[in-house]
Amino acid sequence: MRNINEDTITLAVVESMRDAKNARLRTVMTSLVQHLHSFAREVKLTEGEWVQAIDFLTAVGHITDDKRQEFILLSDTLGLSMLVTAQNNRKPSECTEATVFGPFFVNGAPEYENGNDISNGASGEPCFVSGRILGVDGSPVASARIDVWQSDEDGFYDVQRPPESSSTPAHRARGRLSSAADGSFHFRSILAVAYPIPHDGPVGQLLEALGRHPWRPAHLHFMIAAPGYETLVTHVFREGDPYLDSDAVFGVRSSLIAKWVRHESGVAPDGTRMDKTFYTLEYDFVLNPADDTHQSTHEA
Amino acid sequence: MRNINEDTITLAVVESMRDAKNARLRTVMTSLVQHLHSFAREVKLTEGEWVQAIDFLTAVGHITDDKRQEFILLSDTLGLSMLVTAQNNRKPSECTEATVFGPFFVNGAPEYENGNDISNGASGEPCFVSGRILGVDGSPVASARIDVWQSDEDGFYDVQRPPESSSTPAHRARGRLSSAADGSFHFRSILAVAYPIPHDGPVGQLLEALGRHPWRPAHLHFMIAAPGYETLVTHVFREGDPYLDSDAVFGVRSSLIAKWVRHESGVAPDGTRMDKTFYTLEYDFVLNPADDTHQSTHEA
Repeated sequence: MRNINEDTITLAVVESMRDAKNARLRTVMTSLVQHLHSFAREVKLTEGEWVQAIDFLTAVGHITDDKRQEFILLSDTLGLSMLVTAQNNRKPSECTEATVFGPFFVNGAPEYENGNDISNGASGEPCFVSGRILGVDGSPVASARIDVWQSDEDGFYDVQRPPESSSTPAHRARGRLSSAADGSFHFRSILAVAYPIPHDGPVGQLLEALGRHPWRPAHLHFMIAAPGYETLVTHVFREGDPYLDSDAVFGVRSSLIAKWVRHESGVAPDGTRMDKTFYTLEYDFVLNPADDTHQSTHEA
Repeated sequence: MRNINEDTITLAVVESMRDAKNARLRTVMTSLVQHLHSFAREVKLTEGEWVQAIDFLTAVGHITDDKRQEFILLSDTLGLSMLVTAQNNRKPSECTEATVFGPFFVNGAPEYENGNDISNGASGEPCFVSGRILGVDGSPVASARIDVWQSDEDGFYDVQRPPESSSTPAHRARGRLSSAADGSFHFRSILAVAYPIPHDGPVGQLLEALGRHPWRPAHLHFMIAAPGYETLVTHVFREGDPYLDSDAVFGVRSSLIAKWVRHESGVAPDGTRMDKTFYTLEYDFVLNPADDTHQSTHEA
């Protein structure tokens, strides 16, 4: 280690980790160091660019708090999140595909009964969502835990809003339901709209420098868990959205695109008489049987 | 982009950057994304490990402030800093080699005359440092700007100490000098000692998990700038230090190791009569002529 140079440094770092007790950690860090060094060599990273990178990561760290996760935004916009999601959720083609978790899930959202309005004061055009939770063979999955979360008509999640008066509920347009004995679920909420990811921070500046927009196509987030099945983290995307082909976080999969049906007025699926525009969405989720080793990462 | 999967994601991200106006940024980010994805594929990074990585980076960001730079520590301990330093400071073998900048330089350190005591109240055994700033042909470099910074006898830089009483100088064991007409410089300071990098944060936890110690061999930091020459950022390491072969930041190069001579008492190089132990260190620095494109990154 007395003659470290640009050729010997990588091996020196790898060898320094030889005593790591956790073999998996050693494997991961060895690969990370090798790829990080290969990157720096390939582009011949300059000292000025290294300083820029340190400053960028520092800014990402400093804007991150319990409400805003700029590192997840960074991972999402570099496609790392979708890659990790995809390679950890290989499943039979008849199962519903997974997509990115995103930074806007929160623990402790309200529990609702089927038929409830989960918007809880969030603004937007009414939308009635229904579907079934199924196994690969089409059998219903009863009592599945269904977490749903979404933006309001301005494209903001509740956690992006400044704290309002004490009469405003903390959790809006998010909640937890259970599937019925026949696997079905239904709830009322609001129409999801396309929105830009938070882009007033360092990740937004990076996207702009890269000539990229920060928009995501309209979607509902779902996380569905049931004993004996892999937990499914996914979205349902709105057919026709102009950003389906350029999602800022690379989360779109064609099988997750569904039609939001517009109704000028009439009787909603829950029997409510609507005298203004409303939407309906129907989507079934097919869960993959769990193998014993599969652990859910996003458990509440 | 409607059928992103683990195979197509990398190309999708690379293509999303096609409109970047800055070609160099596009090159750097393309390589970064390709290597980041290759890493994630090679180790088949799990969703749980991804969450751990996000949490780790968040902790690195949150402990970083204007006095502590945990991202630089991370880069240093993964060998990235030394790699970037090495590949940007290729120079003829007769020139003094560069090493890592480290996180402890600060702007605005006091200016001193040759012969001054730069310890400025930092504790440690007296050490008299002298040498010359030279060109490749051995000619003296006059009026070179010499920044020097070091730890005290407890292994702490001034910036690592909590703010003390208003009578304690802010800048201790650091300062700026100029070489004389014959290229020479000399100053009094204190003996540098081996010290652990700050390891009470996430980088320290990572080192421990990797079975690595956080120690650096004793060294003096130098940054030397003169018109017509490349700015030299380097250390002088203390011969005999037990950590020369396992520097936590991989900064040692044999040519930078020098002998600190111990004297029980006697006349110091500046003529001072010393009745206690003191040290002397003599080291000459050879600067590389600047090409026009070379920009110093660490200008104060």
